[in-house]
Amino acid sequence: MKKILIQLDTDALPSTFDRVVAVDAGVDELFSYGGVTPENVETLVHGAIFTRKPSDLMNTAIFVGGSNVAAGETLLKAVKKSLFGPFKVSVMMDSNGSNTTAAATVIAAARHLDLSNTTALVLAGTGPVGCRVAQLLISQGATVRLASRSIDRSTATCEMLSKVVNGAKLMPHESQTEGGLTAACQGVDLVVAAGAAKTQLINTDQLKGISTLKLAIDLNAVAPAGIDGVEVMDKAKDRFGFLSYGAVGVGGTKMKIHLAAVQSLFLANDRVLDTAAIFELGRSLS
Amino acid sequence: MKKILIQLDTDALPSTFDRVVAVDAGVDELFSYGGVTPENVETLVHGAIFTRKPSDLMNTAIFVGGSNVAAGETLLKAVKKSLFGPFKVSVMMDSNGSNTTAAATVIAAARHLDLSNTTALVLAGTGPVGCRVAQLLISQGATVRLASRSIDRSTATCEMLSKVVNGAKLMPHESQTEGGLTAACQGVDLVVAAGAAKTQLINTDQLKGISTLKLAIDLNAVAPAGIDGVEVMDKAKDRFGFLSYGAVGVGGTKMKIHLAAVQSLFLANDRVLDTAAIFELGRSLS
Amino acid sequence: MKKILIQLDTDALPSTFDRVVAVDAGVDELFSYGGVTPENVETLVHGAIFTRKPSDLMNTAIFVGGSNVAAGETLLKAVKKSLFGPFKVSVMMDSNGSNTTAAATVIAAARHLDLSNTTALVLAGTGPVGCRVAQLLISQGATVRLASRSIDRSTATCEMLSKVVNGAKLMPHESQTEGGLTAACQGVDLVVAAGAAKTQLINTDQLKGISTLKLAIDLNAVAPAGIDGVEVMDKAKDRFGFLSYGAVGVGGTKMKIHLAAVQSLFLANDRVLDTAAIFELGRSLS
Repeated sequence: MKKILIQLDTDALPSTFDRVVAVDAGVDELFSYGGVTPENVETLVHGAIFTRKPSDLMNTAIFVGGSNVAAGETLLKAVKKSLFGPFKVSVMMDSNGSNTTAAATVIAAARHLDLSNTTALVLAGTGPVGCRVAQLLISQGATVRLASRSIDRSTATCEMLSKVVNGAKLMPHESQTEGGLTAACQGVDLVVAAGAAKTQLINTDQLKGISTLKLAIDLNAVAPAGIDGVEVMDKAKDRFGFLSYGAVGVGGTKMKIHLAAVQSLFLANDRVLDTAAIFELGRSLS
Repeated sequence: MKKILIQLDTDALPSTFDRVVAVDAGVDELFSYGGVTPENVETLVHGAIFTRKPSDLMNTAIFVGGSNVAAGETLLKAVKKSLFGPFKVSVMMDSNGSNTTAAATVIAAARHLDLSNTTALVLAGTGPVGCRVAQLLISQGATVRLASRSIDRSTATCEMLSKVVNGAKLMPHESQTEGGLTAACQGVDLVVAAGAAKTQLINTDQLKGISTLKLAIDLNAVAPAGIDGVEVMDKAKDRFGFLSYGAVGVGGTKMKIHLAAVQSLFLANDRVLDTAAIFELGRSLS
Repeated sequence: MKKILIQLDTDALPSTFDRVVAVDAGVDELFSYGGVTPENVETLVHGAIFTRKPSDLMNTAIFVGGSNVAAGETLLKAVKKSLFGPFKVSVMMDSNGSNTTAAATVIAAARHLDLSNTTALVLAGTGPVGCRVAQLLISQGATVRLASRSIDRSTATCEMLSKVVNGAKLMPHESQTEGGLTAACQGVDLVVAAGAAKTQLINTDQLKGISTLKLAIDLNAVAPAGIDGVEVMDKAKDRFGFLSYGAVGVGGTKMKIHLAAVQSLFLANDRVLDTAAIFELGRSLS
């Protein structure tokens, strides 16, 4: 029986990136939909679950993607709501690569640090990737400082994450002022920059001022770097006395996780590959 | 040479149901188009018939689908108009599952009744499925009472069907009033309910009042049932002295017909699988 | 590794013609996009070049198509602009079959004439196919008279082509008046008609008046013919003392070139199959 992946993309034209990965993951048939909204989901999901027998449904799965992560989260909810009883297919959500990137980032960090004993600063921590990196770090017992230009937004994200992870060690920070950023940097082992492309979030002087720093990970692929001095190809590169990763340095692991996650959808018909599940799967690969 | 099925769907996002069935029917390549209108058809069909040699065209076929059955009928006409001479591909129309459902319904009835000697009441007989069930029943020699809330609409549908089937034994009925429904029920062997989801068309008392009733088939999958007392999983189930089928009970046959119909498209390049042809094909399977 | 072709089509519904040819050319996975605009291109191309390793990118390619040739040219430019360094995939542009048709036309002419010693008249030479036929003819050393109803447009096209081909022997002509057409016909060996369907560009009397004529090629597939007296199935058919080709007569070669061009995309990751490259490829087949 052929493995069918149904790609529900919130952009008008479904992502070629996700399609190539699906093909390379061994999917036999890819049904790609663009411009998918929550209103379309029930019909699309019912068509998927009412055709093959429940015992065959592990050969059908759903991938939720698109550049808008919030829209993808809404679609994922709608997909889960349309599944019931034995009429289930596995589903993965990775809009804009947010979940696989966050998982690869925290896995890279865990190679060098004992996360349960780590204090981490996540810059642009209210964005889709930063927020997921923070979630995974606190789920591993790290103490996280979640920084944003706006203290209100970082506070809101921290409140949201406290509900997702029990016993979160998490603190909002403001990173727009030099004083705010300096305070956030104080005594951290790890800095992750998860901001928009071409946006520097911390300069070399500020970075060198963190005497406790062991690892810096910058997820921005387009220069100027988010962390000044870190380069896109860095992969456990020694810089100024700490190790650094750039976006491409994390990218190899991200791609492996993405491939393995798509493959794992076809091992059962009831998997939900969200942020936490994709991270667990990624850890099992290393 | 690869078997290509071109799915022309009148909905914006082409049906996942029809796509899964196409894959499971052994189609090698599925070209799925959503939002197809009669204006698009000629270009799409010409691209299909002017690429491969006429002797190879049995490996290319067209499937017309979508939730709107009337729109699908218009597309089917446009497809047929775009084919000519040796430049032909086989085509199947099954918008909203209307043709395969109607075929499966009448095949289920034929398992228990001699249709040429049957009087049948089709409730919601002016709808896309009801109208097709009525067509197939009269084509098998049954006497059909075609009921609708509106006598005008049932009369119009009967007139239309009389042109489709020669020597049709067919009578319009009004089913909105209790008197009208009672008259329609008088002396029938078979009741088929083909109404909208969640809409009861006949209650248990009215049903039990039909002393001649041998078989009741309800095609509504979402409770409350179209025929009060019939359940969705019923399959030749004995209830109150007659047999009953629910939507899922008919669904297995429907799915077999759908699969076989798609497969048969690739046995020649000039098949037109419409209501009558899909029924004939379904009968050949049992 | 599976061969992936990404079809970027400027029409709302991507061409079935191009899809069937892609399948028959051996493409394993076809990603078809309709309604593609230059704004969409970068994201689609980056998704294609950032998934597989550069050494694997010869298994991914892009096809630009659609009925609007000018829009396709703009897309091709946008695709080329999105490729860089080792992050490249091969790309072919054949909107409305313009490049493969032009190549097949000039290859047909070269079977019967020494092009470097040929004077050719291209009717409707400012259109997408006519302009490409003219380009290829002058690239082979032919002297070309490029005719249009408007002398201004034929002059503009000649100026454009002079920049594309060095040392072009090319002259604009007006073909709306009988005098203009007669002058354009004077002493030519070859007439190519590349006008719109159902539009006669030259009548039999005018044609017979060209005593030097050796070959007439009409690319209009829908009667009335562009060259009066030439029939659509003509293939090196002797008519009135010269040979003639109709659209179908040229079509076999066109189809072979289209198939071979798609296949050749997967032999390297940096091919750009434009007008000149498709012609060269077509010549290597004969």
